[in-house]
Amino acid sequence: MDVEIRKAEKADADEILALIQELATFEQEPDALILDKKNIEEDGFGPNPLFSCFVAVFKNKIIGISLFYPRYSTWKGATLHLEDLIVTEKMKGKGIGTKLYKAFLSHADSLGVDRVEWVLLDWNTTAIQFYEKSGAKVLSDWNIVQMDRSSIKNYILENK
Amino acid sequence: MDVEIRKAEKADADEILALIQELATFEQEPDALILDKKNIEEDGFGPNPLFSCFVAVFKNKIIGISLFYPRYSTWKGATLHLEDLIVTEKMKGKGIGTKLYKAFLSHADSLGVDRVEWVLLDWNTTAIQFYEKSGAKVLSDWNIVQMDRSSIKNYILENK
Repeated sequence: MDVEIRKAEKADADEILALIQELATFEQEPDALILDKKNIEEDGFGPNPLFSCFVAVFKNKIIGISLFYPRYSTWKGATLHLEDLIVTEKMKGKGIGTKLYKAFLSHADSLGVDRVEWVLLDWNTTAIQFYEKSGAKVLSDWNIVQMDRSSIKNYILENK
Repeated sequence: MDVEIRKAEKADADEILALIQELATFEQEPDALILDKKNIEEDGFGPNPLFSCFVAVFKNKIIGISLFYPRYSTWKGATLHLEDLIVTEKMKGKGIGTKLYKAFLSHADSLGVDRVEWVLLDWNTTAIQFYEKSGAKVLSDWNIVQMDRSSIKNYILENK
């Protein structure tokens, strides 16, 4: 199968967004996505990109992405965070995820970061097994904590 | 108690590092820290800082920090990640953590991000209660996955 992996470009924004929506639906959060095509264009392909992305292309269509950005560990220094590794449903099981994962890890290696990381839903056993087999460590003793914009505003108002 | 909260400066690197080490020890990972003073100076206070930091100062000593950096959500856009909120053991319980937390949240609000987030060890119930009370949501259905430098290199070698 002739799948090309390349860096994403601005013109890919629409297809990238479609894959992000597909993953949101898979993760049982179909309405969580508030970004539009213009956000993706500006955030990823403007003068100060907030993320980088590889795309998998088959017959001129984007069928998968690995999207990531820099993070920082106060123990290890610069790291990379893999935000999304997505392959469209119809094209799963053909090794495309592995190609995208490899492109991401090779990039991380070329930057010389000491760690890459990402998060997985604990019921996604297929993904957990894939990543553990690749040499990654799954840490189940941490909780993620999030605060949204309105809760931030509330807290500030109540603690003046 | 006369505690000042201000932005961290390069000259604070030594004291910031001491607090990071104190937290690593608290989290039962005393040897995990590979950064030194020079790393903190370069990573936080060079031309392209990898993190930002508030410090709490009491009698000319730094007794706490909140350290954070930008992240990106493919659902919500730009976010901030709170990597460390640390108050030195002797000064806990005096409201200093709350001051540092507030400084961080006010900064997030001024940037207009749609989400802030961080991670917590699941046995750290004091912290979990503090953050839940503040309006944050604790998500326990995600696992963190990490891969270190040598595992990255191994994977690339084995999948050439």
